[in-house]
Amino acid sequence: MKTTITEDQNDAVLVPPTNFSMVEDCIYRSSFPQPCNFPFLQTLNLRSIIYLCPEPYPQQNLDFLQLHDIQLFQFGIEGKTDLSVSTGKDTIMEALKVLIDVRNHPVLIHCNRGKHRTGCIVGCLRKFQNWCLTCVLEEYKRFAGPKSRTTDLKFIETFDTINLRQCLYSIIYKYQGYASMKPRLMHKDDNLQKPQLASA
Amino acid sequence: MKTTITEDQNDAVLVPPTNFSMVEDCIYRSSFPQPCNFPFLQTLNLRSIIYLCPEPYPQQNLDFLQLHDIQLFQFGIEGKTDLSVSTGKDTIMEALKVLIDVRNHPVLIHCNRGKHRTGCIVGCLRKFQNWCLTCVLEEYKRFAGPKSRTTDLKFIETFDTINLRQCLYSIIYKYQGYASMKPRLMHKDDNLQKPQLASA
Repeated sequence: MKTTITEDQNDAVLVPPTNFSMVEDCIYRSSFPQPCNFPFLQTLNLRSIIYLCPEPYPQQNLDFLQLHDIQLFQFGIEGKTDLSVSTGKDTIMEALKVLIDVRNHPVLIHCNRGKHRTGCIVGCLRKFQNWCLTCVLEEYKRFAGPKSRTTDLKFIETFDTINLRQCLYSIIYKYQGYASMKPRLMHKDDNLQKPQLASA
Repeated sequence: MKTTITEDQNDAVLVPPTNFSMVEDCIYRSSFPQPCNFPFLQTLNLRSIIYLCPEPYPQQNLDFLQLHDIQLFQFGIEGKTDLSVSTGKDTIMEALKVLIDVRNHPVLIHCNRGKHRTGCIVGCLRKFQNWCLTCVLEEYKRFAGPKSRTTDLKFIETFDTINLRQCLYSIIYKYQGYASMKPRLMHKDDNLQKPQLASA
């Protein structure tokens, strides 16, 4: 059956990046997006990308970001790094602060293959969401497959998300209406100091 | 550190079912939910569950559904069925109609282990979303792991989603405002007959 060009475009086959998945409302994960993935990424209406490698972002990808007004947050973590060292922990914490800030959503997290660095940050997010450790590690392994790394699993297990809660409080109280649409990224803990709405 | 019962509840560890994942906005997949998963399921605010096995739903699960006003749609597909037979195709098509109807969202799809029957229906949904076949099958395999079945892969490859578009049209046109929040589940195809808003 012949179709017009317009119909072809509407029916164009979409190619998600390898290891693509939805993590949460408006949070996605994947391997490094290639130009063939751009039409698919457009359907996500991304506001930002969290990129976890130290290598410069390719010009084609930068052009795509500029065209669609997508902000790039780069956190240069070397491949095969043991993130348990203090700089690793700090970098993941900074990336998590960007990740949970709904002002950056919809957001795509990616590294190179979407297995290790991406798997670690998603693992930390799950801990922050109070997922039990077994389920957190099961999800990590599902994406890492036979490339699963013990150092990553240990990193996720020992990562402390308590400081992140304070950060989330400031975002929620500053953008209450917006954040209230994301109940699963909220926490109640009266032991933490809550920023005062009146002083904002 | 001692905490009160209230704080404990707020910080309760959540146990998602094995093979749990978000598929799309308001569409989730998993293995068979156990009572230990109920507190987690509560956070999803489910409106319905699509259950793909012929066995009766356990009383504990029925009680959970009743308590939270969740509708059960059961499509009894025997395990290890080759879905390519006509009754298999028809059953999957009926389940897909329930799945894409935003009036049933948020919805959880599950079978027993969340690998084969669930993997097939998600694979068909991806085809309907115009994902390239390689990516559709990659996703199936990620959840099936070493239990991946060639009959399932063939079923997904040959499943024809064209009839589903007509069905989606009726839903979109009937519930236009609601469906417009789900742009990725919409299709434009002028060759299909569109129900008239005026005649609704």
